Amino acid sequence: MDYRASGVDIDAGMEVVERVKRLAKSTFTDGVLSDIGAFGGLFRPELSGMSEPVLVASADGVGTKLAVAFAAGVHTTVGVDLVNHCVNDILVQGARPVFFLDYLATGRLSPDVSASVIEGIATGCRQNGCALLGGETAEMPGFYADGQYDLAGFVVGLVDRPRIIDGRSIVPGDVLIGLPSSGLHTNGYSLARSILFDKLGLRVDSAVEALDCTVGEELLRTHRSYQSAVRPVIETGRVKGIAHITGGGLTDNVPRVLPGACAAAIDPERWTRPVIFDFLRDQGEVPLADMYRTFNMGIGLVVVCAREDAHRVLSKLVTCGEIGAALIGEIREAVAGGPRVEYARVELPGDAQLACGT
Amino acid sequence: MDYRASGVDIDAGMEVVERVKRLAKSTFTDGVLSDIGAFGGLFRPELSGMSEPVLVASADGVGTKLAVAFAAGVHTTVGVDLVNHCVNDILVQGARPVFFLDYLATGRLSPDVSASVIEGIATGCRQNGCALLGGETAEMPGFYADGQYDLAGFVVGLVDRPRIIDGRSIVPGDVLIGLPSSGLHTNGYSLARSILFDKLGLRVDSAVEALDCTVGEELLRTHRSYQSAVRPVIETGRVKGIAHITGGGLTDNVPRVLPGACAAAIDPERWTRPVIFDFLRDQGEVPLADMYRTFNMGIGLVVVCAREDAHRVLSKLVTCGEIGAALIGEIREAVAGGPRVEYARVELPGDAQLACGT
Repeated sequence: MDYRASGVDIDAGMEVVERVKRLAKSTFTDGVLSDIGAFGGLFRPELSGMSEPVLVASADGVGTKLAVAFAAGVHTTVGVDLVNHCVNDILVQGARPVFFLDYLATGRLSPDVSASVIEGIATGCRQNGCALLGGETAEMPGFYADGQYDLAGFVVGLVDRPRIIDGRSIVPGDVLIGLPSSGLHTNGYSLARSILFDKLGLRVDSAVEALDCTVGEELLRTHRSYQSAVRPVIETGRVKGIAHITGGGLTDNVPRVLPGACAAAIDPERWTRPVIFDFLRDQGEVPLADMYRTFNMGIGLVVVCAREDAHRVLSKLVTCGEIGAALIGEIREAVAGGPRVEYARVELPGDAQLACGT
Repeated sequence: MDYRASGVDIDAGMEVVERVKRLAKSTFTDGVLSDIGAFGGLFRPELSGMSEPVLVASADGVGTKLAVAFAAGVHTTVGVDLVNHCVNDILVQGARPVFFLDYLATGRLSPDVSASVIEGIATGCRQNGCALLGGETAEMPGFYADGQYDLAGFVVGLVDRPRIIDGRSIVPGDVLIGLPSSGLHTNGYSLARSILFDKLGLRVDSAVEALDCTVGEELLRTHRSYQSAVRPVIETGRVKGIAHITGGGLTDNVPRVLPGACAAAIDPERWTRPVIFDFLRDQGEVPLADMYRTFNMGIGLVVVCAREDAHRVLSKLVTCGEIGAALIGEIREAVAGGPRVEYARVELPGDAQLACGT
């Protein structure tokens, strides 16, 4: 017996390593000191100008969005999802991503599928200016069905301590600005799949008129990175808090950045929900409260700022490409039980008032 | 339909989050600035005394050792394996671990099993002095069989650039010191399981006389961390290169730290192999070359130093608890094809000669 007979192919693994090395190199930034292949990846952070450098790190996966990728045979987008999800998770605290590592686990290693996944990760890294510093590709016979894999990512970023964004200064009267998502991003896929595939009997290649595309195209839209638009706004110093809308939706994620005395009132009439969310609600007969705790409902990131800064922050976001950014709610005093979100009609300054800064 | 009906239990997830928070707090070091639950974990590294701080990062999994944990119903040790594996991967470049993040993916979330796994990770973090800064627990219905999960870890450490250990100064004549493993550590489990369970029909609770324990006990011995013993040796400045013996065995891992002109001659007669390796070889009729490329064969870490420093390095290792450390080989000129390992009889200084420093 040898290792290949037991289901592990060291040579196929080595082939993947070579391809990964080339892809990783395409992401290398000035700080990278080592090739992939060293035991650990080496990165020299640029600390000049920082008074107290703080590392910000986050780990994440893509969840069962992977099942859609398997069914569609599309393996180049989940890596982009993974990187963007991780980058947003540290962006909300003001951090700039510096490097990324991945974990890819499969049953039997297909060098082509593995390389496609890593290609997506490398694309995501290049788009966010962070280096793919290393990773692990594990072949685990018996753990994953043929053609299946799991994927996790890990990002490290830097922020100067005085510039950490933590929501501490948020007070009643502040406003919430919502940035549009591209669709489901990476959350709610177990429910969405069970409605679309199990209940409705659709397939990834089914064209759905209401969606104006196939189910697979809708579900594989990539998780957006908000870095390029939000970083310039952060640098204005006018951002008090940011929430990344992932698992738990607006309902669970917005309170994560609110001080104890604050609640958020969000007005769902103030943005246009992508059709997929109403389609899922109608077809799945999902209670609205569950929709808002499961899906992002069209808002991928929420920025909190003072009411008097709303116009300048919105303008900057639009200038930086977030043309769908919109005022979606306001901070109110928490009545009881600490930070929470209520969905309600909210009176907010209109464009004319915003333009006057009132 | 709601999310729970589709297989995801947000409340069970929240319960795990609360337990994980308490476990993570038990690992917190001075640098930690945030609770688990913030989008990203915040860590303020101690940089004083460093001329050029370099971050060293590594991602890893536990591989199919997990299948043994499932069969034995023991979930507290794989987390220790994971942390120690990662810590060793950055120790070999001279880095001190500062924080760790985990990714735990399951089919249906069992709060007890998840908490046991994280408990192991927290234990490993405390033992290595690194903070469990965050992580992701993903419930992915349909991806993992009942009671199964996958596990990945990410470690970040720090080293001052002038003190990076990279093997660059290794020259022919240098010697290799081997540090004992506790058993298989985390590599070769697919082959070991196929020999022990499939070929021999053993079970995790089968007592094997040759092993003096059950199969489960043998296979679940935790991957050792070499940090506490090796760090003081690194600080003497006498260590030229270190290799962590993981997938690929001595055969593939030792060359990773050798300069192009060097080969390593390793003498298997110079250390006592734990019985499990001969048992696997005999029962599985595994060619010896495959054994050395699949298993660590009793050596978990290899330290390279100048021949004249061998005695001092060995003594320091023994003083720091590595009483099984042994001279196992020497560096020779590479004949052709770059760095490789050959297994051969090697004449090495004996204890008496070592004591005289000759």
